[in-house]
Amino acid sequence: MASDSSKPVYRATTTAPVNIAVIKYWGKRDVTLNLPTNPSLSVTLSQRSLRTLTTASCSAKFPKDDTLSLNGKPQDISSSKRTLACLSNLRSLRQQLEAADSSLPKLSVLSLRIVSENNFPTAAGLASSAAGFAALVRAVADLYQLPQSATELSRIARQGSGSACRSLMGGYVAWRSGDLADGSDSLAEEVAPASHWPEMRALILVVSAEKKDVPSTEGMQTTVGTSELFARRVESVVPERMAAIEAAIRDRDFPKFAEITMRDSNTFHATCLDSWPPIFYMNDVSRAAVRLVHDINSAVGRTVCAYTFDAGPNAVIYYEEKDSALVAGTAKAILGSNTEGWGGPFYETLANVTAPGVELDKIDPRVLSTLKDGVSRVILTGVGEGPVKVQDHLVSETGEIVTN
Amino acid sequence: MASDSSKPVYRATTTAPVNIAVIKYWGKRDVTLNLPTNPSLSVTLSQRSLRTLTTASCSAKFPKDDTLSLNGKPQDISSSKRTLACLSNLRSLRQQLEAADSSLPKLSVLSLRIVSENNFPTAAGLASSAAGFAALVRAVADLYQLPQSATELSRIARQGSGSACRSLMGGYVAWRSGDLADGSDSLAEEVAPASHWPEMRALILVVSAEKKDVPSTEGMQTTVGTSELFARRVESVVPERMAAIEAAIRDRDFPKFAEITMRDSNTFHATCLDSWPPIFYMNDVSRAAVRLVHDINSAVGRTVCAYTFDAGPNAVIYYEEKDSALVAGTAKAILGSNTEGWGGPFYETLANVTAPGVELDKIDPRVLSTLKDGVSRVILTGVGEGPVKVQDHLVSETGEIVTN
Repeated sequence: MASDSSKPVYRATTTAPVNIAVIKYWGKRDVTLNLPTNPSLSVTLSQRSLRTLTTASCSAKFPKDDTLSLNGKPQDISSSKRTLACLSNLRSLRQQLEAADSSLPKLSVLSLRIVSENNFPTAAGLASSAAGFAALVRAVADLYQLPQSATELSRIARQGSGSACRSLMGGYVAWRSGDLADGSDSLAEEVAPASHWPEMRALILVVSAEKKDVPSTEGMQTTVGTSELFARRVESVVPERMAAIEAAIRDRDFPKFAEITMRDSNTFHATCLDSWPPIFYMNDVSRAAVRLVHDINSAVGRTVCAYTFDAGPNAVIYYEEKDSALVAGTAKAILGSNTEGWGGPFYETLANVTAPGVELDKIDPRVLSTLKDGVSRVILTGVGEGPVKVQDHLVSETGEIVTN
Repeated sequence: MASDSSKPVYRATTTAPVNIAVIKYWGKRDVTLNLPTNPSLSVTLSQRSLRTLTTASCSAKFPKDDTLSLNGKPQDISSSKRTLACLSNLRSLRQQLEAADSSLPKLSVLSLRIVSENNFPTAAGLASSAAGFAALVRAVADLYQLPQSATELSRIARQGSGSACRSLMGGYVAWRSGDLADGSDSLAEEVAPASHWPEMRALILVVSAEKKDVPSTEGMQTTVGTSELFARRVESVVPERMAAIEAAIRDRDFPKFAEITMRDSNTFHATCLDSWPPIFYMNDVSRAAVRLVHDINSAVGRTVCAYTFDAGPNAVIYYEEKDSALVAGTAKAILGSNTEGWGGPFYETLANVTAPGVELDKIDPRVLSTLKDGVSRVILTGVGEGPVKVQDHLVSETGEIVTN
């Protein structure tokens, strides 16, 4: 239609990172608002390895309903209360701006076209929803030129996916559970930027890209409702660990960081097992990764690596750059250098490592064979920055979805 | 020597059963006395399937030191404080008898020759130490003609192996943790005889006869010392479950018995996982057995079976005789009738069952293949009686070890 050219397309595009918790979020005290039973803390992973890229656009030329496309597939927003809640919150903030300054274009009344792409498999236990909702909120906030800080926006992202609130910032990020019923004090905040402790690395052992048995939201509410041990975790275990790991991060004390990380992963999975019916996310390959980490630390004589497992079997192994050969080098020797995923921006110090950093006879032989058979790919990454505004829009100036 | 014929050989022989706890014993508050952190409750399994046979004998013609032979192999008693403690306690009781009645032969001063045989593999997670120490204590008590009840003797057997105290009785047996520092009130007692609920069956899926990674005594003390969740189990979870499962046994309420049994197994393994370093006894085959039980119960529409796992990967599946086809019949269809172990005294109702009691398409397909590949043998048994005095002595009238 001829009139369309007079209807501008407003756009903003951002990347957002994955984060992997070291103090786990598990349990909602309010399911609608995604208010957690306990605080959590995560490491934001580098977007040079894993990222969501999202363009938010709006225009009077778009059809009436907001649309969202993810990895090339249109999503049914109308059935996603969580997406609707985020968009509604962001629109309200834009309306406040527009009400205060009548010279601003009335973007809040325009339909949104949001296009998002992950560079990693969705729903494979890689916290894709965290990066996805963080990118969505950040992109729309940028489109609307909202003045709110990342911490203030985390209140909105949290309603999309709890852990998404932690992907609005880089480095080491705490999600304070808050006390208020309306969730207004349930916010993420940066404990330390990536630059404070940039040597942190993460080796992800991808065990299976199958969909999980029990989705997180269902699993966590089963645990809240049935685990006899869960209350102890919430009441005393996590608060103590939060304080201790923030101190470890402040002091860049890897052994302390590592022990708390491993123990909290174990406690989280223990409460899953204690749920009724029981929930199992770890399998024999996961357990072999646990043993690998303990065996490496034992062989080296100090704590050089730490495992953590989300709601799935993949192992995330944290270590410091200086120990790359000991940790990732040993994993590479076990899995073979032709395992998918070796390479990328964090591979440099490993490319020429051929011998294992730890002699393989120091590792339980059943662990070696279980990992070699069970790990399908690796992702080598490290701590990284929060969302970044970029210009490679997924919606063209004229409003069309750009297909790469 | 000619004089030897004037030195009689005194003998007593007993069988003793295995027991499988439904409320688990895990954690000692006193390691030397084997005093538990919490009460526990078990089902004594029929000796028609699994039993230890032990002869205790004594004679002035035996060499000076007490000896113990297990499955044809001499054991080094002098290095086993636990065995020495049991024998010392039993001798003291005999001495009291002899002091009160001078007409009694002075057996307490004679060397003991104890010979024991299990009809199942030792240290394969089948609680062989429980049956072993129960048989040892019962046989020596019989040899010494001690007037003490099984409950009183349980105080002694407990010092050999904690769970042994529960193998001195048949049926449904509680081990009261007791409060006293000397352990004198830490005793086993019959909650109900086997005849109260004789329909209870147990199908053991033997996953691996490998020795366990972490021996029970070491593992439980790691849990006591490091698990943040463990105290909750001891303080509130177990006491409530003990009361509830005793009521379920009294009422022969299988669904209630089953749920408590499964949940307590899960809680126990959760505290193992929450230990530092973490302890894993269950593996992917164990988890497939968990899923099988939930899938069968779900397909049938009522709770007809319950799993429990000790400190190892073997599954013990409890069910009632009337549901044999549904439970054991389905397992037989999955594993195949040529899996080692089908047969024996409890097989009658199953021998002609060829179709699974539950359609196999109601079971997760990964469960079917994992079980078929991972279960090496089955043991089909049921609730049974306590130790039985028998005449098939493992020591001859002249004091020689009888080799079968």
